Amino acid sequence: MPNYKVIYFDIRGRAELIRLIFAHAGQKFEDSRIVPEEWLKLKPTTPFGQVPALQIDGKMYAQTIAIANYLAREFGLYGKTSLDALEIDQIVCLIQDFLNATLKAKREEDETKKADLLKKYVEEEVPKYLGFLEGLLKKNGTGYFVGSGTTLADIAVYDFIFNLNENHSGVLETFPLIKGHKEKIASLPNIKAYLDVRKPTPY
Amino acid sequence: MPNYKVIYFDIRGRAELIRLIFAHAGQKFEDSRIVPEEWLKLKPTTPFGQVPALQIDGKMYAQTIAIANYLAREFGLYGKTSLDALEIDQIVCLIQDFLNATLKAKREEDETKKADLLKKYVEEEVPKYLGFLEGLLKKNGTGYFVGSGTTLADIAVYDFIFNLNENHSGVLETFPLIKGHKEKIASLPNIKAYLDVRKPTPY
Repeated sequence: MPNYKVIYFDIRGRAELIRLIFAHAGQKFEDSRIVPEEWLKLKPTTPFGQVPALQIDGKMYAQTIAIANYLAREFGLYGKTSLDALEIDQIVCLIQDFLNATLKAKREEDETKKADLLKKYVEEEVPKYLGFLEGLLKKNGTGYFVGSGTTLADIAVYDFIFNLNENHSGVLETFPLIKGHKEKIASLPNIKAYLDVRKPTPY
Repeated sequence: MPNYKVIYFDIRGRAELIRLIFAHAGQKFEDSRIVPEEWLKLKPTTPFGQVPALQIDGKMYAQTIAIANYLAREFGLYGKTSLDALEIDQIVCLIQDFLNATLKAKREEDETKKADLLKKYVEEEVPKYLGFLEGLLKKNGTGYFVGSGTTLADIAVYDFIFNLNENHSGVLETFPLIKGHKEKIASLPNIKAYLDVRKPTPY
């Protein structure tokens, strides 16, 4: 197996999906958490001036989703067929849209506009996206998003929903399938072992 | 071969990458361009209330990048190795970031803020992203982004750069490798045949 090093700040953020995939696969990796002072020195060595980055045997790669897709291929989390992979990518892209909708509200600087955007986010965007996810689980009927076992889609949804639930307590009460999915993924043996010792960070 | 139907509005927009992949692969597809009145009726039949959508033998799939990835697998445009695919995804994700930076400036409603954002976009974002792309072409050294032949990465960059160049004429003059890449992709036989008869739309 290659030597893996995940480079990111000391938060879950955009690196947590990558860490969760490694955890689920039972694959050791170096979890390098940099402090802001190190970042300026490291930034020019990353492909696009961004983290998370993944070093594979010393070579640096960027972009969370590109890295997650690669690891999903390596660890058998990309479904059985090319159409499975299409469904998995579809869900990963949906989660990116959900994340972008979240960040749009959070990053608005004008306070009045921000309040409006947050209201719209909670009343419209959150139920819309959770409705899509609940519908996908209902349609597939196995408790997983694609096929009958854990894939990248399940881990990506779990990672996002964990954060959503932290910030909007009770939001899953009307989405029983997503709530059950969250509990199921969190209780997978390798994920559970990882979560049991995961360093608490605010996000 | 399955029966393919691309569903989108009568513009290039987010569907053009999908159309270009079909064109390059020499694969026939139905290019369904809906008018706004049809959209309300069609919207609930799409997975996430969005187009572009791709129907494969009547089953509807969503999300441009998920669809593009699927077609890249089907048509041999995803590189030779899993690490090639990682590099391809990395570039596709970079183009999504570039697109998001573009839309952020274009969608701002406050006129003063919009002018500031557009200035920052032209003076900082555009050179930054073009610099990354020029650097990738220089490093790979084959005239293609990954390996020594056309991949999804080349088509995704071409599609984006075509639009950028339409809106910011002359922007490629200081990026000779990207300019040459744009010309090379446009002159690939199947792409050229497609572009020769492509319906002109404003975007």
